[in-house]
Formats: sequence, structure tokens, C-alpha cells
Amino acid sequence: MIMNGKELSLKIKENLKKEVEKLDPKPSLVVIQVGEDPASSIYVNSKAKLAREIGYEFEHAKFDENVSEEELIQKIEYINSSDSINGVIVQLPIPKHLDANKIINKINPTKDIDGLTELNAGKLLTSKASLVSCTPKGIITLLKEYNVPFEGKHVVIVGRSNLVGKPLIGLCLNENATVTVCHSKTKDLAKVTKKADILIVAVGKAKLITADYVRKGAVVVDVGINRVDGKLYGDVDFESVSKKAKLITPVPGGVGPMTTISLMENVLVSYNEMKKRR
Amino acid sequence: MIMNGKELSLKIKENLKKEVEKLDPKPSLVVIQVGEDPASSIYVNSKAKLAREIGYEFEHAKFDENVSEEELIQKIEYINSSDSINGVIVQLPIPKHLDANKIINKINPTKDIDGLTELNAGKLLTSKASLVSCTPKGIITLLKEYNVPFEGKHVVIVGRSNLVGKPLIGLCLNENATVTVCHSKTKDLAKVTKKADILIVAVGKAKLITADYVRKGAVVVDVGINRVDGKLYGDVDFESVSKKAKLITPVPGGVGPMTTISLMENVLVSYNEMKKRR
Repeated sequence: MIMNGKELSLKIKENLKKEVEKLDPKPSLVVIQVGEDPASSIYVNSKAKLAREIGYEFEHAKFDENVSEEELIQKIEYINSSDSINGVIVQLPIPKHLDANKIINKINPTKDIDGLTELNAGKLLTSKASLVSCTPKGIITLLKEYNVPFEGKHVVIVGRSNLVGKPLIGLCLNENATVTVCHSKTKDLAKVTKKADILIVAVGKAKLITADYVRKGAVVVDVGINRVDGKLYGDVDFESVSKKAKLITPVPGGVGPMTTISLMENVLVSYNEMKKRR
Repeated sequence: MIMNGKELSLKIKENLKKEVEKLDPKPSLVVIQVGEDPASSIYVNSKAKLAREIGYEFEHAKFDENVSEEELIQKIEYINSSDSINGVIVQLPIPKHLDANKIINKINPTKDIDGLTELNAGKLLTSKASLVSCTPKGIITLLKEYNVPFEGKHVVIVGRSNLVGKPLIGLCLNENATVTVCHSKTKDLAKVTKKADILIVAVGKAKLITADYVRKGAVVVDVGINRVDGKLYGDVDFESVSKKAKLITPVPGGVGPMTTISLMENVLVSYNEMKKRR
């Protein structure tokens, strides 16, 4: 009944470790962080820990929050040209004086382990991308682990962000699902979400999706992580929805660990493709 | 009741003519054709005629059907580097020994007036593309001419091709519509299409969509052009559906002329952007 992302991510981690043991030089990634946002620091540190446990080289490139666009782009161009770095991500959000879209698109798409460049978004939609955005990739991996069928099923995605909702469209179409995308302007959301065989929610509103929004027997994936009075809640009201859903992800322990482990998988994808090109 | 694409395309053509009169040098495009497919020849000739009437320079680059990938790519690279050519398209389909996806992605995205490169597909989905795939662009232009509202409306797209269905997703999300994509694997298609406020059909099956597939008062856009016993039919059964729809496009005279005129608009977009960069 519960799709345990934590457990699956640990299994994938062990497999990655075994593969990386055989490799020399080791795969290597850089995470660029700008400023001192405490949530970002927590995320970066947990990526660093996981990367090192797997056996990757990890560089935490930390910049002052007043860094210029030029300086960041110089760093990215250095990374792009380096033979020993396989992947890079820019930890979001970054300060408002920086154009995040412009900066991300300076990343060489072959090192774009977050799958956020326009080229990789386009590849994913129109054909196949080797580097797929981590949260969507993690969701598909988790659903497949639990043998959830896609073909001919109706996937309803709530949320249309470049990080989650939009890349999910291409992934689910590639799996031959019928796909609906809802968002803040959707009228009568519950009426649409109730059609879902698979409901994926990524909007950032605690407990938005109650049992009234879900068809009995649906598969429900909760991407939200909302902190309310010091406690973590998903976008789905787990208590009521878990009684109606066939399968559901918890928060925490569902999509979150799948996102981070998918990033680690992408490092290896990028490493292997760099090797092939040599 | 009928959305007249022919009429609107003529209006746009007159506006383009007036703009082009003032320009020196004239905007210029190249259409690459491989082989002698008669339908392709008809399409290329009608593009040539329209382009010249508007005042564009037009080159019909015709290659033998046995042309090598290298030779085609050389031509594209020449066009990419030319200061006097603003746009290029490869007339599809091309013979099977050629990798269409690879060839199209050799086009410099700033000259990709068909909007088919992966980079432009990604831009359209994740932010904004200046060069948008012609059929989807023409459809949006036509619907706006008839004051069809998008925000909060449910758009159902039948067909997931890179030319029509997929770019429509990004365009309709940018217009704040709720979007559903159906295709050959969709179960109980009529049940899904009946939810549509705006139904767009692009599958290439004559009269697939009958009145049973359409909600009363819906707006119906028919992208199909199917030749059966020498006669042209859309994907929509016009006779029965037109009685139920609030607005509908005819075949021919609906989406077809909007596609070609949108290509001509893209030439001017590309021309103006090249000028700005100089």
C-alpha cells in the first residue's frame, strides 16, 4: 500500500556503490550553491554525503550571495571543459539578481545531471533524453518497482513546473499513458483528478489533495514537502487519501529519496557517455 | 460557426506583404526537398508561391533521393553560416536511409522556422520559444482570431507527434489551459474527448471523430488531411460534428492555410532577430 522510496533508494545506492568500486577514475560531480539559504545547505550536504558514500568525487562550489552572473558562468564554463568532472547542478533557488534560466542553460547538456537545460527538456519531449530531470525520473523508477502499469492508463499531473510537472509529460507519454496536466488555473480540480489512474501532485500546498480528489484504487504520488509549524506535510492528505488509494507515497520517505538517488544515477550515465565519446 | 483559416491566412499575408515592402534586403528562406514525392512537391511549390508573393527570397534546394546524410548536412551548415538566409526547413518525410531527427537538429535553432529542433521544443515547453512549430502556432492564431478563451479551459489534444501534438502542450499550458494528450493507446477515447472545451485532433484517420466524441458547444480543430478515393477528409466527421460544435475548422480551408502562413511569419521573426544580433 505504501511505496517506500527510502527503501528503494537504498537498494539503488548499493548497486551504484558496487559499480563505482570497479571504476577508475571515479565519477565526479559539482554542486554550485549561491548564498546561505539553510534549506539549500541541508540539501547540498545530504547530496555530498550520499555522493561520497557511493564513491563519487564531490565538489561543493559555494559562492557569496552577491556573486555576479559572469563569475558563475565562468565556473560553469570551466566545469564544461574539464575532462574530470562528469556532472554539475546549480542548487535552486538562487538570488533574484541572477537569471537562473540563463545560468542553467550555460551548462553543457551532456553534464546537465539535473536535466534542466532547454535542450534536454526538448530531447525528453520529442525523442529520448539520457539525462532526465531527477524528481520525474525517481517517480517513474518508484512506480515501476511497484509494477504500476502505464500503458493506456490516465496519468493526471497537478503542477506544471520545469522541475517536475513538465518533464513528467514526456516521460509518461513515452510510457504510452494518457496524460493530463492541471495547475492553479484549472477549474474544478477534483473533477479532473478523480479521473486519474495515477495521480502525481507537485504544487507545494500542504494537504491540498483530500480523499474527495481521488478515485478509489488510484495510485497516488506526492511530490510536495511543506513545513508547517515545524512538521513536514505532503501536498496530499495522507490520512484520508491512503484509505482510498491502492498505492501511495509517504512524505517524507517517498519521492524525496528517489530524487536524490536519481541524481546519483545521472552522474553515472554522464560518466559512461563521456567515456564513450573519448 | 466555421473558423475560416483560408480567410485569416490571406489577411495575415497582406500584413506581411506590407511589412516586407519596407525591408531591404528581403527576408530569405530555403526549403530542402529530397526525392520526388509528389505530395511533397505540391507542398514545396505552394510555399514557394506564397513566399514570393509576400516578397521573400525563396530557394528550393532539391536533392536526389539517394543523397548522403553528409551532403545534406553540408548544405545545412552552409545555410547556418550564411548572413543572407534567415530560415530553412527540411520538407518531411525524407527517405528512410536518412536520419531525419539528426538532420533537423543540425539546423541552427535561430533559423529553425519549422520549430522542430530539440532546443526550440524545449524552449517552448519550459519558457518561451520565438520560433514555434507552424501548425500549432497557426491553430493558436486561428482560435484567438475567433476569441476562443483558453484560461481554465480544458484542451484535449488527440495525437502526440513532434510536429503538432507535443508543441501544442507547451503552447496551451502557456495560455493557462488544462491540457490532456490522447493517442493510439488511450482507452475509451470518446470519454476523454467529451470533456474537451477545445478539442484538437491530429492523427491522420479520416472521420475518426464523430458526434459521439464531442461535447455540445465545444470548439473543434481538425488538423487531419486524409485523401480517400481522391477526396480530402479531415480527422473529424464534419457533417455530424459541425451540428454539435460551437466552432469548427473545415478541411480544407482550416488549419492547412494557417500552417503555411505561420511558416511565413516565422521567417520574419527570424529575420528580425538576426538583424538585432548584428
